Amino acid sequence: MAPDDADSVLVLGIDPGTAITGYGIVRRRGVGRVALVECGVIRTSSKENLPHRIREIFEGIDELMERYRPHAVSVEDVYHGPNARTALTLGHARGAILLAASLRELPIAEYTAPEIKKAVVGTGRATKDQVGFMVKQQLKLKEQPSPADAADGVAAALAHCLMGSFPR
Amino acid sequence: MAPDDADSVLVLGIDPGTAITGYGIVRRRGVGRVALVECGVIRTSSKENLPHRIREIFEGIDELMERYRPHAVSVEDVYHGPNARTALTLGHARGAILLAASLRELPIAEYTAPEIKKAVVGTGRATKDQVGFMVKQQLKLKEQPSPADAADGVAAALAHCLMGSFPR
Repeated sequence: MAPDDADSVLVLGIDPGTAITGYGIVRRRGVGRVALVECGVIRTSSKENLPHRIREIFEGIDELMERYRPHAVSVEDVYHGPNARTALTLGHARGAILLAASLRELPIAEYTAPEIKKAVVGTGRATKDQVGFMVKQQLKLKEQPSPADAADGVAAALAHCLMGSFPR
Repeated sequence: MAPDDADSVLVLGIDPGTAITGYGIVRRRGVGRVALVECGVIRTSSKENLPHRIREIFEGIDELMERYRPHAVSVEDVYHGPNARTALTLGHARGAILLAASLRELPIAEYTAPEIKKAVVGTGRATKDQVGFMVKQQLKLKEQPSPADAADGVAAALAHCLMGSFPR
């Protein structure tokens, strides 16, 4: 779906994970005017092998890009590195996501979790619940996006709407 | 290029890296009869951003798969985890490689570096030079593949030729 007016920009926010990748599509019309278009999660089964799971993430994200034609992608970066094995596995999922955006020539913004929290909540140390609450407030939703991974995807999109630059 | 006889199997071996990804294509005709088809490296520039570099790796590997139509892909896994940040970056490159193979429905084998060294040299603690030497010996090459990353890609392919199963 193309944006319905010239000033509007669509941002696809993504919180990458091998098991659950959260996403949110946020429309931005000028400074401070934001609206949620869709959010959700891509789940993969731990019974499948890693290449299969990576492919599911790639195809899920690519399908969202095909459907909504976002102007930019905002991907959560890893700030506090977990252990090397976890980081390696997470890197596979992130690689598939960055690749999907790169193959479509989309601008990619990367923000650490504290940067996203600071932009959305006002503090880099916000809890998951505070992020969900502020996402709900800022986008005037009836409820917080669920599961929390979906809210994190929306928060990544929202952070880019608030902090990113949008060359025309 | 399709294999030129019914019993032959082509294996694409890959040593993933963000800066240099080594590869080798080895033809296996029955047990112990192996020949090198091609080897080399895919280099990416550290001046480019990560999504661009991942895309170059993906497209380079995909082009090899298109040209040679391998029957299987053998990818070096990480055994001794480096630090989390390094592992995360390496994961991006591996993710792009596993995705390329998965999108083409190719069987993927993963071996740790010690497993590859054990199969090719006889000891999991072999040095880079020993790996290069044994790759040269086993494939009856005039010289060791260069750079060492290319030899590591060949070694990954060779390990799968020696250890892997090839259902017909």
